[in-house]
Amino acid sequence: MSNPIQMTRLLGIDPGLRFTGFGVIDVHNHTMRYVSSGVIKVTGEALPERLRSLIDGIHEVIERYTPHESVIEKVFVNVNPQSTLLLGQARGAAISALVLKDLMVHEYTALQLKKAVVGHGKANKEQVQEMVARLLELPRKPQADAADALAAAICHAQNRSQLAMLAKSDVLGGLGKKGMRIKNGRLVAL
Amino acid sequence: MSNPIQMTRLLGIDPGLRFTGFGVIDVHNHTMRYVSSGVIKVTGEALPERLRSLIDGIHEVIERYTPHESVIEKVFVNVNPQSTLLLGQARGAAISALVLKDLMVHEYTALQLKKAVVGHGKANKEQVQEMVARLLELPRKPQADAADALAAAICHAQNRSQLAMLAKSDVLGGLGKKGMRIKNGRLVAL
Repeated sequence: MSNPIQMTRLLGIDPGLRFTGFGVIDVHNHTMRYVSSGVIKVTGEALPERLRSLIDGIHEVIERYTPHESVIEKVFVNVNPQSTLLLGQARGAAISALVLKDLMVHEYTALQLKKAVVGHGKANKEQVQEMVARLLELPRKPQADAADALAAAICHAQNRSQLAMLAKSDVLGGLGKKGMRIKNGRLVAL
Repeated sequence: MSNPIQMTRLLGIDPGLRFTGFGVIDVHNHTMRYVSSGVIKVTGEALPERLRSLIDGIHEVIERYTPHESVIEKVFVNVNPQSTLLLGQARGAAISALVLKDLMVHEYTALQLKKAVVGHGKANKEQVQEMVARLLELPRKPQADAADALAAAICHAQNRSQLAMLAKSDVLGGLGKKGMRIKNGRLVAL
């Protein structure tokens, strides 16, 4: 577990084969600070070219903002199987881009992201954009893909700070008694 | 279009999140020569770790055999949407591994692979293994994932040699008259 006093820079990614959102925030103790966000426009015709363009885009963002950890939404199967396959490939390439730069990748479901940002799991895109803007004190709503990427980073920031508190309260091994421990920044059963 | 007289080394990949097959062949004029094949065992628990392991495995194969081009099966949606998503992510990572080493990636459907190797599109795994062994003069059948990877390489080798003949017969621009041209080793409409 990293020192919770230290500043940690998080990169959130919302992968897509046409547009991939990214959002960078700094987390210091329990406060978050907006650094940057935007959308990588994926170019190329055939799939391999598009995946290469997606990876290059993510690598540019990593080189520019040098994040410490990364966060990506866990996707679920789509109603359209062909879309599921395409999204799966884009997500596989995005995670590849992150791990190849030795970034730890944290995964959260859409439900977890919405709960963390809006407070309930049934929030729509608009509500996520509004709450992301409010939480990070942005002058205006970020574009939808960028907002989703920032929401992923915010969700992990909150989870991290809860884990840090748990770790602090665990000086006497209370978590171990409950059959839990913290591994790689995640709470897991012993 | 590369010179058809030159030797070209092809790497076929059959991606999977547990086992990823690879097959390397040399193509010289219209003859194929077996170089190597095998199965990369993917390790790790969480998806990002597994994708990293898959990429590292493919990169080891590339460093060892220095192929000139790569070939991968085009996947279609599975009956199980969850499997489709997992396979999509594995395939996305495998293509990422290839393009990041600047290898051109050729894609063929399972139907094209089976037709190229067995002669019809309804061949089963066993028949593909047998025909791969026969075409490459192997002493025994390769393991199924390795055989699929070799089948991908063989399929592209055949396609290349057909394209080379077309290109040769195109000295007077016959293809152009038919509204076709060869681009990146593929026959496309003008």
